[in-house]
Amino acid sequence: MQATYRALCAEGYADLTMQQIADEAGKSKSLLHYHYGTKRELLVSFLAYLLQRFEEKVDATEGDAPDERLRFLLDKMCPSADGDDEYDRFGLALTELRVQAPHDEAYREQVARNEIAIRERFADIIRDGIDDGTFRAVDPERTASLLFAALDGARLQRVVVSPTNDDDSPGAAHDVPTDVRAALETFVVSDLLADDGATTEGAE
Amino acid sequence: MQATYRALCAEGYADLTMQQIADEAGKSKSLLHYHYGTKRELLVSFLAYLLQRFEEKVDATEGDAPDERLRFLLDKMCPSADGDDEYDRFGLALTELRVQAPHDEAYREQVARNEIAIRERFADIIRDGIDDGTFRAVDPERTASLLFAALDGARLQRVVVSPTNDDDSPGAAHDVPTDVRAALETFVVSDLLADDGATTEGAE
Repeated sequence: MQATYRALCAEGYADLTMQQIADEAGKSKSLLHYHYGTKRELLVSFLAYLLQRFEEKVDATEGDAPDERLRFLLDKMCPSADGDDEYDRFGLALTELRVQAPHDEAYREQVARNEIAIRERFADIIRDGIDDGTFRAVDPERTASLLFAALDGARLQRVVVSPTNDDDSPGAAHDVPTDVRAALETFVVSDLLADDGATTEGAE
Repeated sequence: MQATYRALCAEGYADLTMQQIADEAGKSKSLLHYHYGTKRELLVSFLAYLLQRFEEKVDATEGDAPDERLRFLLDKMCPSADGDDEYDRFGLALTELRVQAPHDEAYREQVARNEIAIRERFADIIRDGIDDGTFRAVDPERTASLLFAALDGARLQRVVVSPTNDDDSPGAAHDVPTDVRAALETFVVSDLLADDGATTEGAE
């Protein structure tokens, strides 16, 4: 799976071959096929692996305050504005893969599973925060959808206008994720924490 | 340009040919090449045409109240939750085209131009609203980035898990744009309108 990540960063989605993944893994191509099946099947497993990694990060924050957990996740999904080439190359490859989903049932199912799970984990944290009185009462699902969509859109906008390796013109939307992260803090996180005497049932 | 739109909806980006666009336009392929150059050049013109259409919509609201203008634009960029197949097919084709941008300097320049212009138009409206006292003082650029990224991410998430024509399983993220639009109303538009005695310099 780590070799798949490295191969996607290096080659992009369109040109990816099983041989390149095997080379990155230091294994034979036939062993790769034996364990993971076709390239499509391997990439579905890779999407499941990305989700598992995300869920491990969420689980590692269990026990922390809801606002800390929320900020940690938002930060994790938003890289720094300085040139993070790997982030951009992987973001592009992942977008290319996601864009194939409507043409491929197995991709589509796994992509949908990932999107639903990410949204659900954000909603869980918001729900916990409402229950323990950290957050005011909001619609957890809608709020989660906004957080995820904003970070996802910011990343899309950044990776599509980012320069590729072979030229070094600055990416016009390079700091969009940073701007969006800051705006989410102002408009969403601060608002969730605002104690305006609204209905915060369950608050102590 | 309208024929290009129809051909992209019908064929998607990957399989699009000049012949299909010519057929949609009821013109010859050679006439198309004469006027628009290569397929790449035509698609760059098409991106510029999309931007022009967007700017015409914004210009048509000139003179309306800033909050009305903002809501009108947010609504325009967010379709209804019921099956809008054309929206999904075009959204997918457009995403496929945008994902090509890092590999093609002409695409990348035009895509960047479109993204910057959309963000700038949102920021202009927010700035106008701050100036005339409709909105409280916020960072117009950051707020604009959040609005655009959230709608863009919501559309991405919807189109990648939407069913294609040939099957009819429901799209898992079908109502994400609607949810995100509602959350933007709660967290951003309402907040901009909130008269909390904050610095609204220029207010009457």
